[in-house]
Amino acid sequence: MAKSPLAALVRRKPHELHHVHKPGTAPGTLAAHQDAQPTAMYVMAFDKGEVIEHPLEDLSDIPALRKKWGHVWVNVDGLADIARLEELGRLFNIHPLALEDVVNVHQRPKTEDFEDHMYVVTRQAQVHTNGQRLYMEQVSLFVGKGYVLTFQERPGDCLDPVRDRIRKGQSRLHTFGTDYLAYAILDAIIDGYFPVLDMYSQLLDSIEDTILAEPESTTMGHIHGLKRELMTLRRATWPLREAVGTLMRDGDRIFSDQTDLYLRDCQDHVSRILDILESYHEQAASLTELYLSSLSNKMNEVMKVLTIIATIFMPLGFVAGIYGMNFNPEVSHWNMPETQWAWGYPFALAMMFSIAILFTYYFFRKGWIGHKK
Amino acid sequence: MAKSPLAALVRRKPHELHHVHKPGTAPGTLAAHQDAQPTAMYVMAFDKGEVIEHPLEDLSDIPALRKKWGHVWVNVDGLADIARLEELGRLFNIHPLALEDVVNVHQRPKTEDFEDHMYVVTRQAQVHTNGQRLYMEQVSLFVGKGYVLTFQERPGDCLDPVRDRIRKGQSRLHTFGTDYLAYAILDAIIDGYFPVLDMYSQLLDSIEDTILAEPESTTMGHIHGLKRELMTLRRATWPLREAVGTLMRDGDRIFSDQTDLYLRDCQDHVSRILDILESYHEQAASLTELYLSSLSNKMNEVMKVLTIIATIFMPLGFVAGIYGMNFNPEVSHWNMPETQWAWGYPFALAMMFSIAILFTYYFFRKGWIGHKK
Amino acid sequence: MAKSPLAALVRRKPHELHHVHKPGTAPGTLAAHQDAQPTAMYVMAFDKGEVIEHPLEDLSDIPALRKKWGHVWVNVDGLADIARLEELGRLFNIHPLALEDVVNVHQRPKTEDFEDHMYVVTRQAQVHTNGQRLYMEQVSLFVGKGYVLTFQERPGDCLDPVRDRIRKGQSRLHTFGTDYLAYAILDAIIDGYFPVLDMYSQLLDSIEDTILAEPESTTMGHIHGLKRELMTLRRATWPLREAVGTLMRDGDRIFSDQTDLYLRDCQDHVSRILDILESYHEQAASLTELYLSSLSNKMNEVMKVLTIIATIFMPLGFVAGIYGMNFNPEVSHWNMPETQWAWGYPFALAMMFSIAILFTYYFFRKGWIGHKK
Amino acid sequence: MAKSPLAALVRRKPHELHHVHKPGTAPGTLAAHQDAQPTAMYVMAFDKGEVIEHPLEDLSDIPALRKKWGHVWVNVDGLADIARLEELGRLFNIHPLALEDVVNVHQRPKTEDFEDHMYVVTRQAQVHTNGQRLYMEQVSLFVGKGYVLTFQERPGDCLDPVRDRIRKGQSRLHTFGTDYLAYAILDAIIDGYFPVLDMYSQLLDSIEDTILAEPESTTMGHIHGLKRELMTLRRATWPLREAVGTLMRDGDRIFSDQTDLYLRDCQDHVSRILDILESYHEQAASLTELYLSSLSNKMNEVMKVLTIIATIFMPLGFVAGIYGMNFNPEVSHWNMPETQWAWGYPFALAMMFSIAILFTYYFFRKGWIGHKK
Amino acid sequence: MAKSPLAALVRRKPHELHHVHKPGTAPGTLAAHQDAQPTAMYVMAFDKGEVIEHPLEDLSDIPALRKKWGHVWVNVDGLADIARLEELGRLFNIHPLALEDVVNVHQRPKTEDFEDHMYVVTRQAQVHTNGQRLYMEQVSLFVGKGYVLTFQERPGDCLDPVRDRIRKGQSRLHTFGTDYLAYAILDAIIDGYFPVLDMYSQLLDSIEDTILAEPESTTMGHIHGLKRELMTLRRATWPLREAVGTLMRDGDRIFSDQTDLYLRDCQDHVSRILDILESYHEQAASLTELYLSSLSNKMNEVMKVLTIIATIFMPLGFVAGIYGMNFNPEVSHWNMPETQWAWGYPFALAMMFSIAILFTYYFFRKGWIGHKK
Repeated sequence: MAKSPLAALVRRKPHELHHVHKPGTAPGTLAAHQDAQPTAMYVMAFDKGEVIEHPLEDLSDIPALRKKWGHVWVNVDGLADIARLEELGRLFNIHPLALEDVVNVHQRPKTEDFEDHMYVVTRQAQVHTNGQRLYMEQVSLFVGKGYVLTFQERPGDCLDPVRDRIRKGQSRLHTFGTDYLAYAILDAIIDGYFPVLDMYSQLLDSIEDTILAEPESTTMGHIHGLKRELMTLRRATWPLREAVGTLMRDGDRIFSDQTDLYLRDCQDHVSRILDILESYHEQAASLTELYLSSLSNKMNEVMKVLTIIATIFMPLGFVAGIYGMNFNPEVSHWNMPETQWAWGYPFALAMMFSIAILFTYYFFRKGWIGHKK
Repeated sequence: MAKSPLAALVRRKPHELHHVHKPGTAPGTLAAHQDAQPTAMYVMAFDKGEVIEHPLEDLSDIPALRKKWGHVWVNVDGLADIARLEELGRLFNIHPLALEDVVNVHQRPKTEDFEDHMYVVTRQAQVHTNGQRLYMEQVSLFVGKGYVLTFQERPGDCLDPVRDRIRKGQSRLHTFGTDYLAYAILDAIIDGYFPVLDMYSQLLDSIEDTILAEPESTTMGHIHGLKRELMTLRRATWPLREAVGTLMRDGDRIFSDQTDLYLRDCQDHVSRILDILESYHEQAASLTELYLSSLSNKMNEVMKVLTIIATIFMPLGFVAGIYGMNFNPEVSHWNMPETQWAWGYPFALAMMFSIAILFTYYFFRKGWIGHKK
Repeated sequence: MAKSPLAALVRRKPHELHHVHKPGTAPGTLAAHQDAQPTAMYVMAFDKGEVIEHPLEDLSDIPALRKKWGHVWVNVDGLADIARLEELGRLFNIHPLALEDVVNVHQRPKTEDFEDHMYVVTRQAQVHTNGQRLYMEQVSLFVGKGYVLTFQERPGDCLDPVRDRIRKGQSRLHTFGTDYLAYAILDAIIDGYFPVLDMYSQLLDSIEDTILAEPESTTMGHIHGLKRELMTLRRATWPLREAVGTLMRDGDRIFSDQTDLYLRDCQDHVSRILDILESYHEQAASLTELYLSSLSNKMNEVMKVLTIIATIFMPLGFVAGIYGMNFNPEVSHWNMPETQWAWGYPFALAMMFSIAILFTYYFFRKGWIGHKK
Repeated sequence: MAKSPLAALVRRKPHELHHVHKPGTAPGTLAAHQDAQPTAMYVMAFDKGEVIEHPLEDLSDIPALRKKWGHVWVNVDGLADIARLEELGRLFNIHPLALEDVVNVHQRPKTEDFEDHMYVVTRQAQVHTNGQRLYMEQVSLFVGKGYVLTFQERPGDCLDPVRDRIRKGQSRLHTFGTDYLAYAILDAIIDGYFPVLDMYSQLLDSIEDTILAEPESTTMGHIHGLKRELMTLRRATWPLREAVGTLMRDGDRIFSDQTDLYLRDCQDHVSRILDILESYHEQAASLTELYLSSLSNKMNEVMKVLTIIATIFMPLGFVAGIYGMNFNPEVSHWNMPETQWAWGYPFALAMMFSIAILFTYYFFRKGWIGHKK
Repeated sequence: MAKSPLAALVRRKPHELHHVHKPGTAPGTLAAHQDAQPTAMYVMAFDKGEVIEHPLEDLSDIPALRKKWGHVWVNVDGLADIARLEELGRLFNIHPLALEDVVNVHQRPKTEDFEDHMYVVTRQAQVHTNGQRLYMEQVSLFVGKGYVLTFQERPGDCLDPVRDRIRKGQSRLHTFGTDYLAYAILDAIIDGYFPVLDMYSQLLDSIEDTILAEPESTTMGHIHGLKRELMTLRRATWPLREAVGTLMRDGDRIFSDQTDLYLRDCQDHVSRILDILESYHEQAASLTELYLSSLSNKMNEVMKVLTIIATIFMPLGFVAGIYGMNFNPEVSHWNMPETQWAWGYPFALAMMFSIAILFTYYFFRKGWIGHKK
């Protein structure tokens, strides 16, 4: 059994607190999260096979970029610099409530339809690199005519293949335009769940192996941790189905019919993830029962050993005890005559041996000994 | 492990009885609840950046206030003074059934649409200050053209930040008007659930820590209490989703499109609260299984100690018992010749020692000793 | 802990059999139930503040009564006199199938819309007076223009407050008319569930107290009985929601808009009852887990006592057994020299004492002794 | 407790296999089931109070019968004679797929609408006569203008009361016509579930009695068998609701409005059956918990007996062991001086007695002895 | 009990990994699965009773075939040869996303509507031949005017009966055309689930028999494995219902009304499979409870044996211990006078015998001995 996938579990306890903002403060008020990372912006602009890309220092470049290039993608890593985020928001006419959702990173996945753009909240899932397991991060995506904005909590994401396809210049991204880019990003995020699911599949298998081989007292803790993480994943995926659905239904102004076909494919993937999560959830429940029954079996085994030992040795000890009594054989021949008999001792031993054989046979017949059950 | 959050639980048992009114009495008949607090009214009126606020002693001031100020908010703390409540109801044209729901404070959250105003029943949740845990209280809200009425069971609420924002004079409250004020109050109430959820998150973690470290016999009682409180929260939140939905759908006469966008945000928060409650509920169920399995593990451990001790010492005791028998060695050389043998005693001790070693090795091989499992 | 609410449970077993009628007999065939009570009819007629009421002996009075009074309410207690019921049915144009449902008293709550009247089946719930717990009884209600008919299984109901309000002559009943009377009867029946729910709330609390203090072997039987009764209540309430909904939706010919507002209030109460029943159901499930875990804890405690005793006294007994062996010390100085040593006995006792102390300390360190866990 | 209803359970195991037909064979291919009974047809024809009935040997009589009589009911018992079934099918214009469903008797209840007739698949439930319990059988019903066909797996059914009502000549069957006959057959089949439900109600009660009195090791097997049968019933009833609904909605060409009212009544009965099955299912689940907790209680009781005995006799045995040691009192007065003391033996006995009393009192205080818990 | 169906279980662990494609790669990019089998194509073409069939080596034959024959069915076994698959796709105008779903074989069953053809993903289930149990394989089906394409993961399928029916030349396949062929293939795949369900029915029965006869420690592992496979089946069947529904609803361009009737039959079979899977799932859950309760019963039995033995022999041993004490009877007549009494030993034996009888009777009365419970 591979120990490694089980190892990192118990320590992980995400003290995920749920403050949206200080209760009662005005909605739309932006305040950086205490763990927020420094903000870095990066722009890719492309059109008809040509591409430029560079870090975005000066936000005032944006109008020129949008005029020159058909498709502009601004990616923001880290949400600490509220002022720049607000400036970016103004440039793309983003509603303060949407910007608040970008910054308060524990939103439910959802799609909101604003006049000139769609706003999609989603969460990317990654297998953590440094021995941890599940790492999730909110990705906010705005898509309007000619631009896509993405906001991530920290650098590092699953979008590099999308960037590479832009750079190649020949891909469908150049032909189909901004809405297809938005789809491609969504698709990359959703496909990023599958390696995570694979990890859990292996984890479930290794827990099952452990239980069938030799259940350990920590196994139930592993199952519990696994369930918590599956719940976290489900909470991120369940509303995603609705979010993609809304995108398909209400996104006509922005998404072409062509791209809609791709979104339908996306939707299928979300459904598959949910099916798989559901079946993992049921497997975890079944493993719980398997574990509890294996504990009962172990207890039964322990009790059988005890009972066999006690049932054999208590009568033997009693017989020995009888012949250890001090009744005076000299007073009468009724008093322990066996002790004065020449064959008394061998006879006693033989009796004890018979008793032992008898009980052993009895337990064998009951199936407590010998049969492997 | 922090003991404090667990401490206050078992004592708390809200004998929450559900009498609406004496069964069969005429609906719309008002009768103060036996625990009702003395009634105190407080008015805030504001318009275009100007604000006045004062306790409201004389209800006949209200028409003048409403004429002078665009937005009037009357807050009522304590529901004992039925006569004043009825007078207030008449002034704002409130239906007797609605007023009955205000006074009978165990209503389900709901929105009712009356001709000239909307009536929203909701419940605020607070972490209790004096060592108790969950404190919930019905807040009834009426919103019509130019006025908002709120009724609370007792003084003290989560609306002070809203009041502060009114006082500042520059906030969106002054610009957007009464419907936005109603939204702001709802939002403050709903956001007030998050600190409560954080408390439960910590509680779940501390229960998990306890079980993984050393399950106590009271742990299950804590989980049970936790579940009861989560149920109470869910019963308050579940219908709230529908209530806010009704507000968005049917509130067109009163809520502007602008405010609708904010209500949608509110709705999202309710959905998030429900998601979180659902996942806490599943965590509590999983903790129950974790606890039961840890009990089984402890039992197994106890039984193993017993079985090891018995299995080792019973045969040893039996051997000692044999050589304690009083068969007369003088009668024949078949009777306990060992006792007359010069090396009898050391040999017996050695045999015992061998038996002990043998069983110990057997248990070691079975993994009952030594391996930490 | 109050013993009384728990006392009456186990004896109660309603052999509620479900024969509608002999399978295959013609529908609409009336046959009195074997337990049916003798039929007694009582009429109240009122209009514009005036009221008369008297037992109804001669059904031929009805047409005159209906002509004279605007609102006539005929209440029937006991369903044994099939002939009179059929005569009453003909007078009010009641469909044979409806009358069959009146007489076969285990119907699901429902609303049926006949041409000139609505037919509502509902069940009233009462706390039984003579030590029993839940008593439920079918109440069938017909409401048409100018008349209300109610059929009950036996005398005694929760409608006296409604009757009193009619007698007063000033109540809304006189102003609003027959449809409001039908509502008032429904409302009285539904509000009659709340005292029953209070009883169960107290019962759940007393079971919880019992388990936390000292679980008894009968506790699970109490929980099981409680669950059965909650199921019975839920089966009566769940379809009621739909029944009241149908009344609101399809009852336009009979129910005024004014009364509809009151029915909506009724509907809210049904929803609250269902919420409460649902949460009681979950509490009962949680109590089951609490009880099972407390059994496991008790078992653990019992096993620990056994293990401690055995672990301490088995080695001691073994030591005593060794020095009780009869190896002859005179044969060689290897044979039990301790017994010939002057300090042998004190030394042996000291050794035993040390072993006892050692194991006690071991169990103390393991937390099996001393700590209250 | 009545043993009889429990007796027949475990033996019953319906190896209900689900072959529709050999996978891949052409749909509409008829092949007699291996257990199919010989086919016997019986015709009843009636109109305006007149009735004829006789076994139907020659299918070519049918057109004449249909011409002469307004309402013709052909009942088929046994489905082995494929050729005659196909001939009958052709005479009434039955679709091959429908006829295939008639012969493959494990269909889901459903209603299918063909041009000139409706096809209803349903299952009748009967309490088995010869000690078995549940017997279910597919009944296929075709209703068209002027005729009803029913197909059953074997002779014997619950339709005799319907036949008797036809024979009487005055019943509603003669007035209302063929559609009412179809309803009457459906109603008889559905009402036939209630005696079966009564049997299960008694079975649940007798299991509950058994558990509360003295749980047996076979009880869980009974509950398991009961659950299987409840599932079988539910699988037969659940789709029936939809089937009757379809009949009401789509059967306008065949069913008069008058009969629709009766179908609605039918629908109510199906809903009641489902409610009752649901509550039986929950009762069975609750009985499982009751049984498991009673096993735990019994285990606790067994363990207490063991612990009490061991805790009392182990110290006593140890004391006896001490005074059975062979330290030589002649060597020094430190060696077992008690044995040389004149009152040694009475003193030792008194000490033992005190220890026994002490532990007994301790267990009494703990509530393990004496209190009936 | 048949061991064979249980034997193959635990070894089977499908490391079913869920990579759609490398996350982030362009959708519509084809890459052969690492386990993909070599591609082999086979064509059947038929019209008005005439049939040809041969392996399809040269894809450029297809246009000629389609021109000549009314109905062409190309079956593809093995998905390794991406280039040929793409060529085939171009010939039939298949969308790249659909082709990607063909190659990535873990799709959810679904129906997609393209302009000129429908695309159905489904999974065939087979009982594995070589001792394994469940084998599932994705079958992709395209149906357009005049052609059907099927793609399977490897050679060997459940479609031979369909091929045989084509070859016969007289079957409905020739009359009804391509849409009926598509239906026939779907029907063969769906009917292929029933033998699999039969296998699980027998497996459930054999597990039940095992538990009722003699529960083994591996039984729970079998139940767990069974549940996993039922989940896999359900995941394949659940979306199939929707897929067939979509086919009926949206397939009007391709499916005639005549064939729709057959699809409705198909839909019924899917519903039956789901009903059966659901009931197997509940049976597995119920078997889990049955198994756990049988473990508890076994434990109870073991504990009773231990307790009976200990309760009988501990007092006996104690009595023997008393008379083994070495109090000196010569010092006083208080010291163990019984040992000097002529009848001491017989008396002691009689006392022991009485104690044994007494306890045996006590356990008999308690029902622990003798009664078979």
